[in-house]
Amino acid sequence: MIVELISVGTEILLGNIVNTNAAYLSEKCALLGLSLYYQTVVGDNEERLYETLKTALERSDIVILSGGLGPTQDDLTKETAAKVMGKQLVEDQHSRERIEAYFKNSRSAKITDNNWKQAMVPEGCIVVDNQNGTAPGIIMEDNGKSVILLPGPPNELKPMFEHDIFPYLNQLRPEVIHSVMVKLCGVGESAVETQIRDLIDNQTNPTIATYAKTGEVHLRVTASAADEKEARRLIKPMLKELKNRFGNAIYTMDEHVTLEESVLQMLRGRELTLTTAESLTGGMLSARLTNVPGASEVFRQGYVTYSNRAKRKILDVKKSTLKDYGAVSEKTAKEMAKNGAFITGADVCVALTGVAGPSMQEDKPVGLVYIACSYNNNITVTECHFNGERAKIRESAVVKALTLLRNCILEDGAKN
Amino acid sequence: MIVELISVGTEILLGNIVNTNAAYLSEKCALLGLSLYYQTVVGDNEERLYETLKTALERSDIVILSGGLGPTQDDLTKETAAKVMGKQLVEDQHSRERIEAYFKNSRSAKITDNNWKQAMVPEGCIVVDNQNGTAPGIIMEDNGKSVILLPGPPNELKPMFEHDIFPYLNQLRPEVIHSVMVKLCGVGESAVETQIRDLIDNQTNPTIATYAKTGEVHLRVTASAADEKEARRLIKPMLKELKNRFGNAIYTMDEHVTLEESVLQMLRGRELTLTTAESLTGGMLSARLTNVPGASEVFRQGYVTYSNRAKRKILDVKKSTLKDYGAVSEKTAKEMAKNGAFITGADVCVALTGVAGPSMQEDKPVGLVYIACSYNNNITVTECHFNGERAKIRESAVVKALTLLRNCILEDGAKN
Repeated sequence: MIVELISVGTEILLGNIVNTNAAYLSEKCALLGLSLYYQTVVGDNEERLYETLKTALERSDIVILSGGLGPTQDDLTKETAAKVMGKQLVEDQHSRERIEAYFKNSRSAKITDNNWKQAMVPEGCIVVDNQNGTAPGIIMEDNGKSVILLPGPPNELKPMFEHDIFPYLNQLRPEVIHSVMVKLCGVGESAVETQIRDLIDNQTNPTIATYAKTGEVHLRVTASAADEKEARRLIKPMLKELKNRFGNAIYTMDEHVTLEESVLQMLRGRELTLTTAESLTGGMLSARLTNVPGASEVFRQGYVTYSNRAKRKILDVKKSTLKDYGAVSEKTAKEMAKNGAFITGADVCVALTGVAGPSMQEDKPVGLVYIACSYNNNITVTECHFNGERAKIRESAVVKALTLLRNCILEDGAKN
Repeated sequence: MIVELISVGTEILLGNIVNTNAAYLSEKCALLGLSLYYQTVVGDNEERLYETLKTALERSDIVILSGGLGPTQDDLTKETAAKVMGKQLVEDQHSRERIEAYFKNSRSAKITDNNWKQAMVPEGCIVVDNQNGTAPGIIMEDNGKSVILLPGPPNELKPMFEHDIFPYLNQLRPEVIHSVMVKLCGVGESAVETQIRDLIDNQTNPTIATYAKTGEVHLRVTASAADEKEARRLIKPMLKELKNRFGNAIYTMDEHVTLEESVLQMLRGRELTLTTAESLTGGMLSARLTNVPGASEVFRQGYVTYSNRAKRKILDVKKSTLKDYGAVSEKTAKEMAKNGAFITGADVCVALTGVAGPSMQEDKPVGLVYIACSYNNNITVTECHFNGERAKIRESAVVKALTLLRNCILEDGAKN
């Protein structure tokens, strides 16, 4: 079955935003075994959108459009798609009630007349609830073809796709697809690729696809079969082989588990508490940890000690350490981790200090970062050199901190 | 003049990589005042690429293709584009010498026979040197149309574009475009749209485009004229009108300034220091503030007090407050802000406490957030109700905190 993506939005054509939705949807379509030959981006322009959708419907079975479902006059994806499919727009009572409830809940935002536009849907379509916004998703079916409309904001599009669109597309296929995401940390992309080249060269069913993330590599193992049980059976030996090859570098085989969640689970299992002491990352590590629901069982507090004075006053880093070695030094990182654990009584403290750029600091190069982990009073420090601009360096440092913490937990387990 | 982008590469269609080249090139084209109506992604497939390029040439004056210039057999962008333009491929002596030199320089990589493929160029084209790889860029001109081929790797494409393609395109354009981004906070998208409907309905030159971000709305005002001075003159009355209508809700008219940067600038101008006391956002506010280079002048430290105990121990929130009102309460937020300022000696402290979900807490609903700002010992608190899932609620709370802080600064200015 052939699927095609149309992203609607002048902001993409102006380069204001990167089209991450297309990458997300493409990955999911690949996973479903759908052939995807074209992605198109078109602006909020009726004529061009009309032509683009018409062309797409001539050459593909399923067309997924994202964006242009907002309440403003610019937003005309739904109107135009309905026109192409020859459908009238009618008010959907259920969507109207949901929009009403949404605004009732958010007392700050006021409902305006144009919000009701979002309750209008093409006649006879499948309406998909939006759990994170006011624009419902829409599926139109005609002549064996499907046109799917999704809201543009990724935080609305992704949950809707996971929850409703993925199952919808899966039941359209003759075979069932099952896949497992194997997530690795602490190994580079090329090292992983070299280690699995033979598996990739000889793959038929299951297949392996590699995805490089900042500081992580994800491997998606996918099998297609008559039923899910058979697909799972096909995947099993491949997962065993990957376990043999990568061992502890694999932190999860659950698609929805993040690195921070896996680390928090390990700490929870050991009844250990965690605190953070951040300089260059300014709270990014604690923000990531607390994005995991229930993090409070393990993580109770964190410190952002951005200035030297804060490092001294809050974390008791010695004046002489800062003077003799600098804030960006192994010794400062160690003291931050050690004292962070001490003053909070936490079992574990992860500390980061470094140069995020754009300028050098203390004559030290941009990208130099020290990460220390105090784990039951044993301190491990690592010196890192990251490439890229400020945001990339900070993100790399956070992932590396989580990986270091994970290694400390694993080593502790090995000792016992 | 109309420009169109075609990104060639099966890896984009599989979702293995995000198409950042398209965003980069689109932004540059917008800056050049070129109209860009379509971006297409197509795989390394001759037939589909041929059709896509033909269609693009029918509707656009300039087509920029990226990717598919590598030395392997998969790479067929150059061959296909030459075919569409009716040109033969001939060997370019200069490119051959450059490839030879490139390999001599990089001793690790060995030259193979298929590398010479990269020295073949369409007859009569402009060859553009690649300073960071072996695939030259190519410009073909015919019948008043231009087809531009660029290498896919961003570290090759971007320098080549900056150095050669931008100047080439600049001399082609008939008119100059100038645009200003007007950024607003504290007003919803629909409210903004309602307030400027008349301006949008009557727009010709300049035009206004609306972009909704979490907690913000951006308006791009664009004018086209014979020269930049005239374009600026055309934009001026529109900017004045927007200022009249939105007043202080406009936080900047500089495209590159973020809300956090603008708030930090205001505090720096007043020689005030800032600290943060975060619960549900877990460091996201401080992370955002410290993403701004030079934030350390204003922001020196922050606290993540995730547990009740941390709120008591670190921020001296009263036991009775937590017991009688709960951690998610106006009173707790107030004490966090007041004490945060007191213990650090900072002039300003922003505190957040709330229910990020997925579950209720203290019988309080998901999305309920209290944000307090202690500004020179005057405390303002706001109660918010945010929609969406955990990540969205946390992000909305951070933007709201920045907006509240900004209002406190503005009010202070109004009093003086």
